[in-house]
Amino acid sequence: MVSDDWTFHGGRLDRARMVYADAPRPWIDLSTGINPHGWDAGLAGPIDWRALPDPQALGRLEAAAAACFGAAPDRVRALPGTEIGLRLLPALGLPAPFRHVEPGYRTHGDALAGSIAISADALDQEAARGGTILLANPNNPDGGILPPATLVDLARRIAGKGGWLVVDEAFADACPEAGILPMLEADLPVIVLRSFGKYFGLAGLRLGFMIAPPAMLERLDRRLGSWPVSAAAIAIGTAAYRDAAWIAATRRRLRADADALDALLTRHGLEGRGACPLFRLIETDDAPALFERLARQGILTRPFDYQPRWLRLGLPADAAFDRLDRALAHG
Amino acid sequence: MVSDDWTFHGGRLDRARMVYADAPRPWIDLSTGINPHGWDAGLAGPIDWRALPDPQALGRLEAAAAACFGAAPDRVRALPGTEIGLRLLPALGLPAPFRHVEPGYRTHGDALAGSIAISADALDQEAARGGTILLANPNNPDGGILPPATLVDLARRIAGKGGWLVVDEAFADACPEAGILPMLEADLPVIVLRSFGKYFGLAGLRLGFMIAPPAMLERLDRRLGSWPVSAAAIAIGTAAYRDAAWIAATRRRLRADADALDALLTRHGLEGRGACPLFRLIETDDAPALFERLARQGILTRPFDYQPRWLRLGLPADAAFDRLDRALAHG
Repeated sequence: MVSDDWTFHGGRLDRARMVYADAPRPWIDLSTGINPHGWDAGLAGPIDWRALPDPQALGRLEAAAAACFGAAPDRVRALPGTEIGLRLLPALGLPAPFRHVEPGYRTHGDALAGSIAISADALDQEAARGGTILLANPNNPDGGILPPATLVDLARRIAGKGGWLVVDEAFADACPEAGILPMLEADLPVIVLRSFGKYFGLAGLRLGFMIAPPAMLERLDRRLGSWPVSAAAIAIGTAAYRDAAWIAATRRRLRADADALDALLTRHGLEGRGACPLFRLIETDDAPALFERLARQGILTRPFDYQPRWLRLGLPADAAFDRLDRALAHG
Repeated sequence: MVSDDWTFHGGRLDRARMVYADAPRPWIDLSTGINPHGWDAGLAGPIDWRALPDPQALGRLEAAAAACFGAAPDRVRALPGTEIGLRLLPALGLPAPFRHVEPGYRTHGDALAGSIAISADALDQEAARGGTILLANPNNPDGGILPPATLVDLARRIAGKGGWLVVDEAFADACPEAGILPMLEADLPVIVLRSFGKYFGLAGLRLGFMIAPPAMLERLDRRLGSWPVSAAAIAIGTAAYRDAAWIAATRRRLRADADALDALLTRHGLEGRGACPLFRLIETDDAPALFERLARQGILTRPFDYQPRWLRLGLPADAAFDRLDRALAHG
């Protein structure tokens, strides 16, 4: 049975292990969009946990991330995960009314109290009202991408009414063509959130970034204080963002793997939706039964309470492709 | 010259290395109150950074911390450092007027915008006005301890006016007699903050806790979301809080080391103030010259812009005692 444990966020493998105790091990977690071929954290060397994180080292992390995002280094602030970054938005003095795009990432509606859900089709019209609009690009769970030029137009429109646009680019490392930062004029009222853990496959590190104009960053700094992220986040994040060869090779690999997943789904009569290589959304009347069938085979996917015909599948790694193939055939 | 780099927070060794480039290496950082004999993080085993932190493992961390604090496990929430915890206070709907005790921890006045500084002598009188009072116990930088029974009385007084008391127990692991949690009735409007990194000597981990009544924790949860701390914070924190033998032995060791530091200071005509074994405050007309002299010997201490006659010294480790002794003799 699909329960709240899995429809709120992905990654609740602990519950799945209890509920489907007879499922074959090891479990395959396809309930998140985390890269299964993560960066090797050992390459950053041993972590010195003893001292408070060094502000200069933090600056180097932010510079390395900025270079990767195509942003100005002084506009980038490290966060202990984008989840907390989203939940800090109400403290930044953003103008009402608040709106967020649905379907979208679960936290968006939760982070801005009183926010009204709007459809992506209504963005133009809503931007003309000013206030604050929060959306994800690429979107989650459907993997849809709005062209950055469209978002820049939207930002100009909302700016004209004193409003702000907040773009959650949690999955944008995997599809750099979706990133708004390289084309953002300095004075546009846009806040961008980036996530480290998804593309680099190290979600346990808790590292994200907020990129915003200086006045907004001053407000953020007051909420974060001097040591926003751990020594490991600084060491591993800096080394990983500087690893341009890995970043480029991984983009190619993820696209090839996403193509392979699409082909596998097609063989089983399913169509994978979305342009972000880290996950695919499938829509089928059988979604609840399919969730159950896969879980009994030790494969956790992501169901949605608001749309029971959907399942989201993260990218399987290596042998997990075969187990997914067999589990889908098992029907 | 004592600059802003060192009077805002401790731990800015990076700047000291640049300004006092000729100082003997390695630098000894006595500018913070971090235990130099930290828990061995390697005992927690290798960290799995790949998955999102497991909510059940987070619960085990909070339970282990609660047992160590003498708190109810369902009242304890992990934070990515108490610094962020303090800066989340304005988002929790605490009642005005805001007041914080000075001298105290620098962040306190910064965290609550519009907060008025009061002296510890005025606490009774201020509590009778209701609102919110934030203080540290043990206090920082002077190491003064208010008996928990006094704080409970204060909490009852402020409760009578619909107010809240916030107690920053960042250094309380080192002096458990200062901890209010074991004697706190469930309905008192008290928020307690605890820090992992200071006592366990692992400040780079960024782990702290908020302990509060359920309604306040619900507000906090909305600001933190599902994955507030890293996989390392969960693994290392859980193992360290469960290491009762290390915790007890370290309390004895820190007390002995603090006694030795007091004796050393006395030999050089200085008096170490404070009851928290992790640091001592000295007061002398020579404080700025003494800061300079120690820095030239590769020893960073903590000066204060608002009280130039003060220096705070963290506990030296092993050979650092001798270097401090020689540097003080050097005069």
